Amino acid sequence: MSKFAVLGYGVVGSGVVELFYKNKEKIQKTAGHEMDLKYILDIREFPDSPYKEKIVNSIDLIVNDNEITTVAECMGGVEPAFTFTRQCLEKGISVCTSNKELVAKKGDILFEIAKNNNCNYFYEASVGGAIPIMRPLHRCLAGNDITSVAGILNGTTNFILTKMINDGMDFDDALKLAQQLGYAESNPAADIEGHDACRKICIISSLVYGRHVYPDSVYTKGITDIQLKDVQIVDKFGAIKLIAQVRRLENGKILPTVMPMIVPRESMLSNVSDVFNAVMVCGDGIDKAMFYGRGAGKLPTASAVMGDIIEAEKHSMTILSQCWDKSEGNSFIEDYKAFSSKMYFRIQTENTSAIEEECGQVSYIYNDNKEAAFVTEKMTLDKAMGIQSALAEKNIITAAMLPILDD
Amino acid sequence: MSKFAVLGYGVVGSGVVELFYKNKEKIQKTAGHEMDLKYILDIREFPDSPYKEKIVNSIDLIVNDNEITTVAECMGGVEPAFTFTRQCLEKGISVCTSNKELVAKKGDILFEIAKNNNCNYFYEASVGGAIPIMRPLHRCLAGNDITSVAGILNGTTNFILTKMINDGMDFDDALKLAQQLGYAESNPAADIEGHDACRKICIISSLVYGRHVYPDSVYTKGITDIQLKDVQIVDKFGAIKLIAQVRRLENGKILPTVMPMIVPRESMLSNVSDVFNAVMVCGDGIDKAMFYGRGAGKLPTASAVMGDIIEAEKHSMTILSQCWDKSEGNSFIEDYKAFSSKMYFRIQTENTSAIEEECGQVSYIYNDNKEAAFVTEKMTLDKAMGIQSALAEKNIITAAMLPILDD
Repeated sequence: MSKFAVLGYGVVGSGVVELFYKNKEKIQKTAGHEMDLKYILDIREFPDSPYKEKIVNSIDLIVNDNEITTVAECMGGVEPAFTFTRQCLEKGISVCTSNKELVAKKGDILFEIAKNNNCNYFYEASVGGAIPIMRPLHRCLAGNDITSVAGILNGTTNFILTKMINDGMDFDDALKLAQQLGYAESNPAADIEGHDACRKICIISSLVYGRHVYPDSVYTKGITDIQLKDVQIVDKFGAIKLIAQVRRLENGKILPTVMPMIVPRESMLSNVSDVFNAVMVCGDGIDKAMFYGRGAGKLPTASAVMGDIIEAEKHSMTILSQCWDKSEGNSFIEDYKAFSSKMYFRIQTENTSAIEEECGQVSYIYNDNKEAAFVTEKMTLDKAMGIQSALAEKNIITAAMLPILDD
Repeated sequence: MSKFAVLGYGVVGSGVVELFYKNKEKIQKTAGHEMDLKYILDIREFPDSPYKEKIVNSIDLIVNDNEITTVAECMGGVEPAFTFTRQCLEKGISVCTSNKELVAKKGDILFEIAKNNNCNYFYEASVGGAIPIMRPLHRCLAGNDITSVAGILNGTTNFILTKMINDGMDFDDALKLAQQLGYAESNPAADIEGHDACRKICIISSLVYGRHVYPDSVYTKGITDIQLKDVQIVDKFGAIKLIAQVRRLENGKILPTVMPMIVPRESMLSNVSDVFNAVMVCGDGIDKAMFYGRGAGKLPTASAVMGDIIEAEKHSMTILSQCWDKSEGNSFIEDYKAFSSKMYFRIQTENTSAIEEECGQVSYIYNDNKEAAFVTEKMTLDKAMGIQSALAEKNIITAAMLPILDD
């Protein structure tokens, strides 16, 4: 018999409790022994909860209880989650987290503590909600040299973009609908400005390339500038999606980015709609593989936490292949301006000769004699931004510029 | 330092050797220690291979070498693979296999031997080639009650159907093209008659529901009857795919099937084209999650074997959650006629009143006064087959009948 605790009885934490009791028999069979939930930590009281007797408000009670072998941290935010996680790990209690902000900002420190105390800090639920992605990356795909990972990692923005694509809504209306449906918060900045997706690509980049990538070293652009006109123009050949990506470049550096991109119809990622998430992994063995599912929500996220709890219960040793090292400086991260792809431009001019002068060979996809939209050959973001400046000097406005995903 | 051997130096076996030496540094880092390949077993000689000195033709040499801790079985077929695998496991050597026929027919016996000798029999590569699916199912999704798994598990048939859908080729021409491109064998029966997909859904069913499901207890129908006309009629709302599926029914039994089905456009599975494979898993926590990638080929399959080899090197104990029990009889498997879904019919008649008499409420999707195609409400295959017989008694020919996937 082993006992675990849940920190935070909000959406995810209550989902973990619900899923555990619903599937307890199967979970115990997989774990190989009997298990029970002993504590739920929350500062609030839940007088109507069937588990009200398990609810406690002191982390010390949990940390000092020798029966507790695993803790699920479903609190979110850096503090007090960081302090509580550290306390657990220092006592040799494995921690399974859904807290992407904490992993992205402090993962390296927590892995170090876990290693020193021979327990595990698991984080499957921190990226892609229900989607198994961390374990496949460090276990199943361990024989591969992974060249890139590109994902739709934020359900809120994907819902907004889907409404723009399928229903012709503009950004503001789609955001309002997302808020009405509870997919976006009243302050939606973390989602629509790309910070949530940024944390997730930090975690993926750190795992795949072995060194901690901090959020502030990742170029992050949200979807607030996306105009319905571009969504409609590119509809023939692709869909605009917020893509969180990391590439390993030929110079050995890595380039993590979060920005809206045009995903060509041939890519499976273009079919990922509504609040669903997906991650496309490219490697020298697999060519490409994609993982798709619900990226958020009570039971989907709880499913990932539960999988980690079972794994933690089965492992008495730190799993080093799912940890990464501290990074000293950012010298292994390439400047975002070196990002290279075909580019989509929409510019406001009658004078298409200016386009060819600046961009070279292009493929037009729209031209109404006032505006033209076209796709360039592959170029760096640096060059694309130079083109924008050069056009501006000729009094030509670039209404939109979007990189095109190449997978 | 640990040493492993590869049994069978064909497509997959040579891929394992290639991938290992290409990514040796990373693989050793993940495994946590130095590794090397010591033997390659094959009855053929490879005088031009850079690894010719590792090639041996006696399994005894491998089995009796105490340095060998893991073996990759990439031979295919039941014998001599079964005997060799048994010999390895009996010596406590873990075996990682890409051999779906052997796992589907003898997995239960081999797990028993592995358990008794405290080693592992891993089979990630036996289903879905490069796609991580076994480990996600028994680890990451372990907190779920899994209600169904539906997959496109055979690349050859998916290539043929894609050519019919996208290029308007008929079945015979598409098969010939697949043979020319090396996707189909000169005797394509195992693929086009569904036996390959059947072995794979047996493995998935056994893992998910814990009891061995043998190929001969699975209703298996291939794609040889699929007509271009139906592919084109259903194109508006779906794609015909060979779907290998297992469902857990309300009566507690499971129902594994392999048959062509219409996959509605809303399902991500409808976008899986060419030789790619995908597996959609439904569970009470995750709702649904899909895994997509290359289902066959040298390096993709080798990637899965390599992931298993690394895992085997890291585990000194049998992982019981990836084993299943022997099944005594088939009483836990429901008769295929109880399979229930909406049905697509194409019948040759001018007399649509006969349709409504037999089928009740239907939605027409095609009618040229000689033939009509329509979709019924949900019904069992038993009832659908009864309708075919009743129509035949009225001299009305059913030209096509296909179940519609509901995910």
